[in-house]
Amino acid sequence: MPETPNLDRIASPKDLKSLDLATLRAVADELRAETIDAVSVTGGHLGAGLGVVELTVALHHVFDTPDDVLIWDVGHQCYPHKILTGRRDRIRTLRQGGGLSGFTKRSESEYDPFGAAHASTSISAALGFSVASDLKGEKRHVVAVIGDGSMSAGMAYEAMNNAGALDKNLIVILNDNDMSIAPPVGAMSHYFARLVSSKGYRSLRRIGKGLAKVIGVEEAARRAEEYMRGMAVGGTMFEELGFRYVGPIDGHDVAQLVAVLKNVRDGQDGPVLIHAVTHKGHGYAPAEAAADKYHGVAKFNVITGEQAKSKPAAPSYTGVFADALIREAEADPSIVAITAAMPGGTGLDKFAARFPQRCFDVGIAEQHAVTFAAGLAAAGMKPFAALYSTFMQRAYDSVVHDVAIQNLPVRFAIDRAGLVGADGSTHAGSFDVGYLGMLPGMVIMAAADEAELARMVKTATLIDDGPSAFRYPRGEGTGVEIPANPQALEIGKGRIVREGSTVAILSLGTRLEESLKAADQLAAHGLSATVADARFAKPLDEDLILRLAREHEVLITIEEGSRGGFGAFVLHLLAEKGVLDRGLKIRTMTLPDVFQEHDSPVKQYDEARLNARHITATVLDALGRSEEAAKALA
Amino acid sequence: MPETPNLDRIASPKDLKSLDLATLRAVADELRAETIDAVSVTGGHLGAGLGVVELTVALHHVFDTPDDVLIWDVGHQCYPHKILTGRRDRIRTLRQGGGLSGFTKRSESEYDPFGAAHASTSISAALGFSVASDLKGEKRHVVAVIGDGSMSAGMAYEAMNNAGALDKNLIVILNDNDMSIAPPVGAMSHYFARLVSSKGYRSLRRIGKGLAKVIGVEEAARRAEEYMRGMAVGGTMFEELGFRYVGPIDGHDVAQLVAVLKNVRDGQDGPVLIHAVTHKGHGYAPAEAAADKYHGVAKFNVITGEQAKSKPAAPSYTGVFADALIREAEADPSIVAITAAMPGGTGLDKFAARFPQRCFDVGIAEQHAVTFAAGLAAAGMKPFAALYSTFMQRAYDSVVHDVAIQNLPVRFAIDRAGLVGADGSTHAGSFDVGYLGMLPGMVIMAAADEAELARMVKTATLIDDGPSAFRYPRGEGTGVEIPANPQALEIGKGRIVREGSTVAILSLGTRLEESLKAADQLAAHGLSATVADARFAKPLDEDLILRLAREHEVLITIEEGSRGGFGAFVLHLLAEKGVLDRGLKIRTMTLPDVFQEHDSPVKQYDEARLNARHITATVLDALGRSEEAAKALA
Repeated sequence: MPETPNLDRIASPKDLKSLDLATLRAVADELRAETIDAVSVTGGHLGAGLGVVELTVALHHVFDTPDDVLIWDVGHQCYPHKILTGRRDRIRTLRQGGGLSGFTKRSESEYDPFGAAHASTSISAALGFSVASDLKGEKRHVVAVIGDGSMSAGMAYEAMNNAGALDKNLIVILNDNDMSIAPPVGAMSHYFARLVSSKGYRSLRRIGKGLAKVIGVEEAARRAEEYMRGMAVGGTMFEELGFRYVGPIDGHDVAQLVAVLKNVRDGQDGPVLIHAVTHKGHGYAPAEAAADKYHGVAKFNVITGEQAKSKPAAPSYTGVFADALIREAEADPSIVAITAAMPGGTGLDKFAARFPQRCFDVGIAEQHAVTFAAGLAAAGMKPFAALYSTFMQRAYDSVVHDVAIQNLPVRFAIDRAGLVGADGSTHAGSFDVGYLGMLPGMVIMAAADEAELARMVKTATLIDDGPSAFRYPRGEGTGVEIPANPQALEIGKGRIVREGSTVAILSLGTRLEESLKAADQLAAHGLSATVADARFAKPLDEDLILRLAREHEVLITIEEGSRGGFGAFVLHLLAEKGVLDRGLKIRTMTLPDVFQEHDSPVKQYDEARLNARHITATVLDALGRSEEAAKALA
Repeated sequence: MPETPNLDRIASPKDLKSLDLATLRAVADELRAETIDAVSVTGGHLGAGLGVVELTVALHHVFDTPDDVLIWDVGHQCYPHKILTGRRDRIRTLRQGGGLSGFTKRSESEYDPFGAAHASTSISAALGFSVASDLKGEKRHVVAVIGDGSMSAGMAYEAMNNAGALDKNLIVILNDNDMSIAPPVGAMSHYFARLVSSKGYRSLRRIGKGLAKVIGVEEAARRAEEYMRGMAVGGTMFEELGFRYVGPIDGHDVAQLVAVLKNVRDGQDGPVLIHAVTHKGHGYAPAEAAADKYHGVAKFNVITGEQAKSKPAAPSYTGVFADALIREAEADPSIVAITAAMPGGTGLDKFAARFPQRCFDVGIAEQHAVTFAAGLAAAGMKPFAALYSTFMQRAYDSVVHDVAIQNLPVRFAIDRAGLVGADGSTHAGSFDVGYLGMLPGMVIMAAADEAELARMVKTATLIDDGPSAFRYPRGEGTGVEIPANPQALEIGKGRIVREGSTVAILSLGTRLEESLKAADQLAAHGLSATVADARFAKPLDEDLILRLAREHEVLITIEEGSRGGFGAFVLHLLAEKGVLDRGLKIRTMTLPDVFQEHDSPVKQYDEARLNARHITATVLDALGRSEEAAKALA
């Protein structure tokens, strides 16, 4: 653990108030060391936090948190903030079951007035706080810190457009590190770069770096403040939107930050945007040297920066998707791919390397991504929109209005479907089968393993008469062999994986292995189980489902999704067909009706009651054998 | 019918190609007269179409539609476009069952390459066409026409940000009529106004209006074109986003439009934004004089402009909501209201008149609206976000990520839930019970009549520990008395409306009246029916549902929503509790799994099979009395 004599004296942000600039700098240096050490133990988001160490110290020094409201966009850069706000003693539990969240979280601290994890929500939320203060006649400052990548989302623009017109007091700090998870895209990022390359910013850096040595920190800060007052180095776009623009300033210069923040705090009249230039991974050589600036890391060695990444036993679903799509695209020039700022996370970086003209990273802009894909489909292309399940929620109306109603053949590759482990409830992909399954004309597939995923990619290329989607989970596959030339699936047809007689387990997607294990366990209870892989949540394999219902005493559906999804569609069908009239011991196993906290995937599945023994117990319970069921769970 | 000798010669846009400017103007005048006459017969959107008559003529004159792609944002301004593109013979069937859609629609014409109805999708779609053309090596122009109101949506910004960086050929025409449905809000609209007040625009108007008389139209057009080439009157914001900016120009001056469009067409190199100033309702005095510029009208008298609005038999649900909310807000200063550019449609114009400081129109910006509401809730206010069901789809992730996961007490007033008649599939509110019902912690109510709605508003004010929603349909209430002091409902409790013995009909929301009628019909078949109003889709009234299932032979659920909603939640519950083990004739009546086309509400309900006789037939069928069922339907 690093030596942190100055940081050790900070029990809460109040202890930062009276410190001079030299001590604040020392605190910042120690805070950086402590953050690095903590993440070396837990893994997690590192680069973003390192980029805002000085900003975090300056903000808590200048503003009276938690009375003043400080909202971090995304929240993955908040580890230094957590250390300063009474959570240092738990900082080495980050992202562990029962430990601190990897994001800001209201339930965790009064210093987190508004939680996050998805990008670009902070200005909207901050405006809510600002308006509420105004209505209540309170005097409090409201600050949102938002990255340049997050500014590519329409929601940030919607909020600026509203805030600029309402003219409430609101401070937006543009944390411009010229990085999203990947390098940022879009015209706005070019605009930021032009602002940063301005003469004013370079002068200011000189004051910060050079002059401070000669004239002392306090004097340099005074001059920077003076300079800021008179500066007019651009930011026209923000000014047109009704914001006063201040900057760009050096986001790693504590003196400059403190001077500017005080200035803005004391002279506030309407919305202000402070443009702070930072560097992701700042102050930690291995992070600075890495292409992704240590955006997200495994546990690592602090000295070498070497990450303890375990060797995968099987290829990741993401990688299998990318390889399969590349293979199809070799043969079909109409295949194009779209990502919303997640080229690495979706595997489309590989696709882009192979087909640079046919891959589009549109920024954090899911609505546009999907409607852009719809335009491509209307023009005769075969677009694959690769999105995380949880982020696709942002494009829901685009899916409904632009894709489904027009019946356009957009293919949705839905990554991170189901539980996601350490990222927790905000990143879980729980709802896609439900919210897509309601839409007329959708084809929805769910992969039971990586070979199935390869087949589903192939299948999707052939679905030309309407939209389709295939979902697959985070992480490694099951290790099955992946066919070199995957065959397309028959639309709306599942498969029997194991034949039995009394019990039928109908699995959609990832729980097939557990279903097979449960069948083994049931055999030990003298029960013969059929196991089927539904493959399609829509259209349903009606023949298969009716046969399973007719020929078995118990029917279990299981899926890694919420109620209102696959199980619900099966129930609707059975009701409609009158199969329930004569009695059927049917149970629908889904994710529970709670937002599950971050934990290891194994524990999350246990909490969700979606493992083999839960299936076994559910069957035994349905048969009235509750004592055996209780034992099966033990 | 108006005299239209010039328009009569236009069978398709090809016939506009060789016309001189004077004739194009004559065509425009006749097109305006024809549009007015058609809408006087059908009702529909009028003001927006009148604002783009000249633009429509100029676009089809200059561009080679349908080879060149022309995409109208929203599409409600497309009636003149429909008249010019082979649909004049059906223009008096607009919005009628089996007739033309009130919006652009791919299935209707090759001149509608991308349909719409919701705002702000056109730039994304156009970029898709542009990229596809580029990849295929086609030479075609792609034009999107988008209103200034639509530019408040984040999606338009996302698309501009992407298009500016991709640098493809794309023409965006900003149709700046300084109107959304209501006057536009937000900082961008101020920005547009500043551009229009520029000196350059005023000079250009002079060339158009004055000089044309002296020097002739062709010469004035030549001078305007020359002028445009040299002009630089602002538009910096668009230029920073990578667009060449042209304008502002007079959108009612055919000569100017033709000159500028030809210039842009022939000199295109990358994305261009043409800023055209128009007036909603232009050229029709009653529309120009009306506050809403005849945005949407009933049938009307062309001479007087008087609309044939039928006298409502009962207050509208929207009005009842507004009155109830105002009543609550009188007593509770923490109640605030948010609309996304629909103050009139949601009734919040009345709320704003009473509480101007507590009502927020954020523009066409549903994502921001909801997260802004979440910020207000986190700061201790009681926000009511009033949204149409279909537009709420745009805010889905804000509901999940910012409201539900944080369990913040935002109240959603969901208007236009269910079928909507003439606006058709794009405006139907079919999915909200499903997509909200999946979310842990949501309270979801559905009003059976307007008295129930008043009670639900009251109930929502008291739900302080998490999010809640209440849904209600478009149009008039049922005529019941509205309580002066509505009592709050008990959360998660339904009510028995009629006691019976053999059949149970469990209705959520608007189908209660039909359920009661069905009970009468069933009595004639010797069947005694219990009718219950569920009131809550979440949490379910488990006691009530289990009692209905236990005590009746047949259980019908009915709702004005898709599969995967209330009926699905009831089925999940019954499966879980083992009620289906012993057999239950359960049928879930929902909206059908198709996108229903525009028609009269009565016919839409018939098509959906959600009227009394469908309930009756479903019950009889479930009981094996299929001959009687067939008769009940006849």
